[in-house]
Amino acid sequence: MRTNHFVMADSSWPGFAKSLKGVILDLCGVLYDSGEGDGVAIPGSIEAVKKLKESDLQLRFCTNETQATREKFVAKLRRLGFDISASEVFPPAPAAMAVLKDRGLRPHLLIHDGLLPEFDGVDKNNPNCVIIGDAAENFSYRNLNEAFRVLIGLEKPVLFSLGQGRYYKETDGLKLDVGVYMKALEYACDLKAEVIGKPSPTFFQSVLNDLGLQPHEVLMIGDDLLNDVGGAQHCGMKGVQVRTGKYRPSDERHPTVMADGTVDNLAQAVDMILNQRGH
Amino acid sequence: MRTNHFVMADSSWPGFAKSLKGVILDLCGVLYDSGEGDGVAIPGSIEAVKKLKESDLQLRFCTNETQATREKFVAKLRRLGFDISASEVFPPAPAAMAVLKDRGLRPHLLIHDGLLPEFDGVDKNNPNCVIIGDAAENFSYRNLNEAFRVLIGLEKPVLFSLGQGRYYKETDGLKLDVGVYMKALEYACDLKAEVIGKPSPTFFQSVLNDLGLQPHEVLMIGDDLLNDVGGAQHCGMKGVQVRTGKYRPSDERHPTVMADGTVDNLAQAVDMILNQRGH
Repeated sequence: MRTNHFVMADSSWPGFAKSLKGVILDLCGVLYDSGEGDGVAIPGSIEAVKKLKESDLQLRFCTNETQATREKFVAKLRRLGFDISASEVFPPAPAAMAVLKDRGLRPHLLIHDGLLPEFDGVDKNNPNCVIIGDAAENFSYRNLNEAFRVLIGLEKPVLFSLGQGRYYKETDGLKLDVGVYMKALEYACDLKAEVIGKPSPTFFQSVLNDLGLQPHEVLMIGDDLLNDVGGAQHCGMKGVQVRTGKYRPSDERHPTVMADGTVDNLAQAVDMILNQRGH
Repeated sequence: MRTNHFVMADSSWPGFAKSLKGVILDLCGVLYDSGEGDGVAIPGSIEAVKKLKESDLQLRFCTNETQATREKFVAKLRRLGFDISASEVFPPAPAAMAVLKDRGLRPHLLIHDGLLPEFDGVDKNNPNCVIIGDAAENFSYRNLNEAFRVLIGLEKPVLFSLGQGRYYKETDGLKLDVGVYMKALEYACDLKAEVIGKPSPTFFQSVLNDLGLQPHEVLMIGDDLLNDVGGAQHCGMKGVQVRTGKYRPSDERHPTVMADGTVDNLAQAVDMILNQRGH
């Protein structure tokens, strides 16, 4: 019998629930499944977010979403029924803008059209770095060649990748994520990309700073074992995986990353945490 | 002064020329530059091939070309003015067909339309492996997602890559090569591809078998430091790089691979070899 199946039936789980002061939720695959239009909310997740907001736990949302501006993305979540505001959501693009300004870099962008407005305020002439996000249909042969030529033409090529996910699930099936194209350009140019987004410790730390909490006081809940759970654990947080979104059964026997708990969905995770805290 | 510049002026170079019994030539970037239509012959290369054929050296051509069938590819070379026949040319696709038959595999193909006829004779229903070649425009977001879904759906995913080049030069600029997409799918599926083509030792050995020669009796001349020169040296052959095609000056200070000689072009290499042999 696997440990996580055992602890599912154990009323003392999760043992760390009483010491928590904050929760960070991934979005896609935890709150909703993306796809045509706005996608669909995962059953029970709207109520689960509501319960967390009514509890004494602080709540933030940390996502590698890069197909839309934060503003449009949050508007979509609100249309799906979630009570979420932009200031609670941490995506990679605003963090990337901060890095560009800090280091005086001018980007060549290979990103989704919907994300372009996030980079309105930066000089893109004569680029000295490349930024890739989850560009979806924009990951064409032509656009990849173009990004490659910019990089190979630089004396010191700098590649930023907004996340490093392998794939994600949409309502019509699995799709390759930005990490796959990051690896492609890394190999083509013989370089190592700088990841902005999960599982970068810098990125998680910016959320912890906003919460004003220490890592051991915070739980991350996500569907991605490596980028959500492993990334959070690497920073000293607890990490719980949901069996929705990109979850695959083989995640529960991963050779190096073991979640602090695995639950069927967000609703179950929230009920167990709040029950344990005596709500 | 760099060694290869010194030896260029040294009448005793190449010191190994007298012991040679055979020469293997790469094609694209050595004999011609690809691009619109048939591309263009590199100056002096047509005459250089003629001189080698008239010498006492055996000659073969070893290429990672996968945008056309061997038949059509050789016809193009002949139109460019090269006296070459199909039986002298070793590309990856026929080698891949042999592997498929040997192991009873049914491929999902992500290759250039021009290469499809090479795989006419194999069952492609219910695929249990994926083959990628230099698919060029066929490396679309949609086609990559499709190849990924086939692989991730297999209990034991098998990915064959026809070569592992990073990029090549066409008349309108550098283009990403199949190795880049191989790395992308390797990362997506957490697997290691099997390379069919240069620098695979199995692939070089098939050419040596056809020549009936030992590795130390054979020289490989190519524009790709890692796949041509390094690959041949790994098999015990000599390897010379030409400063045409995808050659870059930084190749001459590569940390791990050093060519047995670097020459401006094929014509210069052939003249030096034949002079040294007293022709």
